[in-house]
Amino acid sequence: MVDVATTSAVETPIPDLGDGQALVQVQYLSIDPTIRTWMDDVPSYRPPIGLGEVVRSIGGGEVVESRSDRYKVGDRVVGMTGWQEYCVADEGLESMSVVPAGLDLPVAMNVLGVTGITAHVGLLKIGAMKEGDVVVVSGAAGATGSMVGQIASLKGASQVVGIAGGPEKCTLLTGTMKFDAAIDYKAGDVARQLLELCPEGMDVYFDNVGGEILEAALADLAMHARVVMCGAISGYNAMERPHGPSNLYNLIVKRARMEGFIVSDHMAEWGAIQAELAGWLLEGKLYHSEHIVEGLDHAPEALNLLFTGSNTGKVLVKVS
Amino acid sequence: MVDVATTSAVETPIPDLGDGQALVQVQYLSIDPTIRTWMDDVPSYRPPIGLGEVVRSIGGGEVVESRSDRYKVGDRVVGMTGWQEYCVADEGLESMSVVPAGLDLPVAMNVLGVTGITAHVGLLKIGAMKEGDVVVVSGAAGATGSMVGQIASLKGASQVVGIAGGPEKCTLLTGTMKFDAAIDYKAGDVARQLLELCPEGMDVYFDNVGGEILEAALADLAMHARVVMCGAISGYNAMERPHGPSNLYNLIVKRARMEGFIVSDHMAEWGAIQAELAGWLLEGKLYHSEHIVEGLDHAPEALNLLFTGSNTGKVLVKVS
Repeated sequence: MVDVATTSAVETPIPDLGDGQALVQVQYLSIDPTIRTWMDDVPSYRPPIGLGEVVRSIGGGEVVESRSDRYKVGDRVVGMTGWQEYCVADEGLESMSVVPAGLDLPVAMNVLGVTGITAHVGLLKIGAMKEGDVVVVSGAAGATGSMVGQIASLKGASQVVGIAGGPEKCTLLTGTMKFDAAIDYKAGDVARQLLELCPEGMDVYFDNVGGEILEAALADLAMHARVVMCGAISGYNAMERPHGPSNLYNLIVKRARMEGFIVSDHMAEWGAIQAELAGWLLEGKLYHSEHIVEGLDHAPEALNLLFTGSNTGKVLVKVS
Repeated sequence: MVDVATTSAVETPIPDLGDGQALVQVQYLSIDPTIRTWMDDVPSYRPPIGLGEVVRSIGGGEVVESRSDRYKVGDRVVGMTGWQEYCVADEGLESMSVVPAGLDLPVAMNVLGVTGITAHVGLLKIGAMKEGDVVVVSGAAGATGSMVGQIASLKGASQVVGIAGGPEKCTLLTGTMKFDAAIDYKAGDVARQLLELCPEGMDVYFDNVGGEILEAALADLAMHARVVMCGAISGYNAMERPHGPSNLYNLIVKRARMEGFIVSDHMAEWGAIQAELAGWLLEGKLYHSEHIVEGLDHAPEALNLLFTGSNTGKVLVKVS
């Protein structure tokens, strides 16, 4: 959990624009578990957020001033805004992408944003999911997890099982989202339930949580299974790193593969993936939900929602 | 460790041959860590050895009687002999392979046998080692490990580091076998030494041991590293399965892959691999050593050598 006193609101002048820059009024922040990992002072795939720096975050907003050909005043854009009311967009490596007209900004930031793209890349490219595969996903009622399960069904998985916490989330998975089955990890032995539900083992396990649930999944792999390492939220707040699964040897027994990825490595494919996701969205085939927390000041509490599991769907902060 | 009382010597009549069968007088047993895993009553990639059954094992010997076109009397053959003085070879799925004339049986059972082939498949196919890669192998003075390091050098690795126990083994690695460096895991902090020796991280880590050394290796991965899971000898004798590494999250940070394999899945490639290994052998480019224990009765002690680390090179039992 993040102590809300870890961050403080600071007023600074709105920056002047240089050539090629635009000023963005931030409307929504994308609250992602990975932000928590950037708050630890350890090397990761990006450097830690320094003390006194703006909290790094994806966000979306509207261009209110522009000295760039790339951004017009009135454009809605998504990118690395940080937790702030205004940010500068430029044309460099981390330039912001313009949201097509007619698309709701929160939906664009969920389904067509890092969340949906992470699910797609992880399941289909890293996990190499094929038609007929048995697919299991943890954190299944979360933003990424719920996309993973639904994409698996749309791509012809023979069975889609979600692991989530509590009966409401499980009902959401098997009802609205049409998962074949859901396991409530708070209710009982995940390993036993997996073995019962998937007696032939799972072909793809998409891991958002790590810890004991990863261990339960490793005990039920099909031959040549792929374990997609997307996140390990169960350990992000631990003061000491929790032990790993005691059954990694099963990767040998099942000739299985475990692979981590970061969605920003796959930007060349984002356009094609967004087009496929937008198609499903327009056909009404992708259930999505945005959990909106009001007010920039509440961003730390919004981040904590991810770790208490009290959200369903994509957590966004409305900066207002 | 295997209590020597776990096995007992039993006299049974030499079996009569059916059509297509041959009788083999077993001369050498190949003592491999995996035999220990078959002694546990848990599902693995082969069923456990049943109580009262002959201990499953690769071995080599000479055909002394034949009712098969495949085997001639006098042929030297290698295959699943079990821990016994005589066995029956047939023409089915687990038929035995005939050793070419002029090749020493123990050498054939080491370099051209499962040991050498496992090293080759694991490093080059599973680990996808490329010229210029930094390669680290644990259990490096063992039969498979010593082949891995030497093959890595022959294939153009930029740096080959072996992890082994004790100064004698380390000297053997850097001297005779021309590894670039060796780490004595009994002498100190493996993680720190790896970070010092390979500051850019390792591209391929070939894991024979699991446990703490695997954890140390995961802390020093290069981007897109491959972790080849060949064995986990540190845990084979544990009464409770030891915890796994606490830093699996590094697979995400480094977009890395961890994959297990079983050499018998790759039989289609064995011929080509044996030809390459035989070429290096004839050119004197592969150091190999066979640690021969005399007497079938001493097979359990020979197996234990693998777990105390008191062997260097391939352990074989001479049945005599």
